[in-house]
Amino acid sequence: MNANWKLLKNGLIVTINDSADVDTGDILIEGKYIRGIGSNLKHSDAQYFDASEYVIIPGLIQTHVHLCQTLFRNLADDLTLLNWLNKKIYPWEALHTPESLAISTKLGIAELLLGGTSTILDMGTVNHMDVVFEELARSGMRAFCGKTMMDKGEMPIALQENTSKAIDSSLTLLERWHNTGSERVKYAFAPRFILSCSKELLTETVKLSREYNVPLHTHAAENMTEVDIVKTMYNKDTISFFEEIGAAGPNLCLAHCVWLNDREKDILRDTKIKVLHCPSSNLKLGSGIAPIPEYLDHGITVSIGADGAPCNNNLDAFTEMRLAALIQKPKYGAHVMDSESVLRMATIEGAKTLGLENEIGSIEVGKKADLALIKLNQVHTIPYKSIYSKLVYSTPSSAVEHLIIDGEWVVKNRSLFNYDINDIMKQANYIANKLFIN
Amino acid sequence: MNANWKLLKNGLIVTINDSADVDTGDILIEGKYIRGIGSNLKHSDAQYFDASEYVIIPGLIQTHVHLCQTLFRNLADDLTLLNWLNKKIYPWEALHTPESLAISTKLGIAELLLGGTSTILDMGTVNHMDVVFEELARSGMRAFCGKTMMDKGEMPIALQENTSKAIDSSLTLLERWHNTGSERVKYAFAPRFILSCSKELLTETVKLSREYNVPLHTHAAENMTEVDIVKTMYNKDTISFFEEIGAAGPNLCLAHCVWLNDREKDILRDTKIKVLHCPSSNLKLGSGIAPIPEYLDHGITVSIGADGAPCNNNLDAFTEMRLAALIQKPKYGAHVMDSESVLRMATIEGAKTLGLENEIGSIEVGKKADLALIKLNQVHTIPYKSIYSKLVYSTPSSAVEHLIIDGEWVVKNRSLFNYDINDIMKQANYIANKLFIN
Repeated sequence: MNANWKLLKNGLIVTINDSADVDTGDILIEGKYIRGIGSNLKHSDAQYFDASEYVIIPGLIQTHVHLCQTLFRNLADDLTLLNWLNKKIYPWEALHTPESLAISTKLGIAELLLGGTSTILDMGTVNHMDVVFEELARSGMRAFCGKTMMDKGEMPIALQENTSKAIDSSLTLLERWHNTGSERVKYAFAPRFILSCSKELLTETVKLSREYNVPLHTHAAENMTEVDIVKTMYNKDTISFFEEIGAAGPNLCLAHCVWLNDREKDILRDTKIKVLHCPSSNLKLGSGIAPIPEYLDHGITVSIGADGAPCNNNLDAFTEMRLAALIQKPKYGAHVMDSESVLRMATIEGAKTLGLENEIGSIEVGKKADLALIKLNQVHTIPYKSIYSKLVYSTPSSAVEHLIIDGEWVVKNRSLFNYDINDIMKQANYIANKLFIN
Repeated sequence: MNANWKLLKNGLIVTINDSADVDTGDILIEGKYIRGIGSNLKHSDAQYFDASEYVIIPGLIQTHVHLCQTLFRNLADDLTLLNWLNKKIYPWEALHTPESLAISTKLGIAELLLGGTSTILDMGTVNHMDVVFEELARSGMRAFCGKTMMDKGEMPIALQENTSKAIDSSLTLLERWHNTGSERVKYAFAPRFILSCSKELLTETVKLSREYNVPLHTHAAENMTEVDIVKTMYNKDTISFFEEIGAAGPNLCLAHCVWLNDREKDILRDTKIKVLHCPSSNLKLGSGIAPIPEYLDHGITVSIGADGAPCNNNLDAFTEMRLAALIQKPKYGAHVMDSESVLRMATIEGAKTLGLENEIGSIEVGKKADLALIKLNQVHTIPYKSIYSKLVYSTPSSAVEHLIIDGEWVVKNRSLFNYDINDIMKQANYIANKLFIN
């Protein structure tokens, strides 16, 4: 038996391949890669694993997360976006120490991994970002992450930076962490949003993200007031502004896109901008409901994310999938957002968003083995049919029993391989009480 | 030690009393009743239970459920109300045998109890309803239930009844089960909705529900097409029609109320009609979003329910609470539906809906001991503050560890006292495959 080979036997495999194959069978893994999928596979060197009680899906991908905010969970309800940022989130991000940021990151990663999320696109905070990258590298998670850039607007002193500081510190982090700390951890530039970034900062970031071929991750058109301010500032709609500064292109990843007009939707389609949909967050901050069925009709790539703990208040891909399906139906009709399409948004469409569609997002020979094993023989998933419906509407994240990333067990029997969860919870409570709860 | 006395020590008690007290303390129970709440309680005859790891809330109350539909879970997605009823639900209810109805009921009850729901208002099906009452009485759950009455519209033959048959069979069930099989099980008349009931049937049911002083449980203004048909049939809005036939009053429990005009809202307020809010179901069937903040501003009693498994696809009070909070914020503002108000909807407002506000719905001396014990030291509920926010936004039903009804353990350590859950799941799968899955 060689640890380099694994053979998962008799799982119900939801492949998310182009033919949408769903079949009971085996998955043979060598190192990081899937080498075989089929019936009665055998391999003399492999560690066998009985997967007959499990549904196996691609590891879930969340393309908009703020790990730095996990310690603010349940502490900032009932506020709209700009109040929420100015009264709660900015002051708290300003209070972060390396220690508090590390535990916030760990707590967020723990919740994500235990809930079957194997890959994230994370937006960080201004300071101490090395600790976020350190934790990501240690965790085994696949992640794009970037320091949030802000050179404009009223901010707590600790978050104030000028344009060159925001850019220089981003480049330092990129050089230190992009593909180096862990092959699974990559950099993404993260100017926060138009209101907190100068045109100069945004324009420079566009160039850098092209130069390094990494995602440009930002928020856009989340809230009507924000959209109005952008229009007043630049006499342009949000997406037209991005077009003007040369940002419109396949590596532009825009969280939210709740308030876009028809012309802006066409620009998304024509320039292959990616939409990162965060249904819980959009509801909770009273932002609105993003017109996702229209984006899908346009052929725009839409993926999902939980956003941060204080606007959700979870980091749960299953919750986001269920909500992504439900919230569109009153407006567009009960037939929209079928469960298979929604599961694709949380897997292969997330992979496309990150430019990783040839590596992850589906279970196929030659792809990396990022796999979530879900126990569905539970009271809320009986009867046991209609697998997509079950995964999207009836499966709680607690049904994820195991998670494999790059062929390695990261969660087994609902326990994290690389973390002591009790220790994390204890530290998180202690530090949150010290810094953020009065 | 006397099994008649129980003493829960050192729980975090969320009382839902008029002062909204939340304190760490003890609860002393004698038989069915809460006899003491406070610090350092002692009782020489009591069975002690260490509740120091738990939040203790009143058992949750769901006021609109269809246990008969649990076996149809995940089998009827992406349809609007009337198609969903005509193409899926009616044909399947017509196929029910006593055996399939019993297992559907058991599976539903199991999910509800394991998720902390101690009391329901259930709408049954047309036939074999004795088995539903038998299972309710056996389960230990507190429930109002009634046979669905329909004497109009196109139906599968097995569901067709004339007016007198619908009434007579309801009365037979009432006499057999109301306060008799189990003191916890009571009858509620359940004409399905205006479209499937003659005016004569509804008028007669109004009289009977007054005579027996039991709830009149029906669906109203769920879907715009339904509302239009009612208007065409009777030249009246839905609530005006109920008023005309004498139904408007405190025992009228109306599921949904998505599409009411201002005059109808005033009638609800003036006549103390109860609204049963089902957020998942209203989204999933594309029905709309009920204007709950307006009802609350009117002082109308609003409680919540999961509706049936095929339009949700769960029976989970925590999911409904979270959604009840979130879906109103884009329209009415992020400040509406604070988490404390939402938890009250799932507890004391549910009790008021059923006329049980002096018996259940809050943790107070003299009330019945219906208590859910929830373990909150979990990764998705850290940091451990803001208890209402945590319960409404971040607590999965899997965090319910124990449930007490009438002072009796019904769930302990996530296991049902009165049922073998593996046996239920196995039977449910077998029968669903035989009858409802082709």
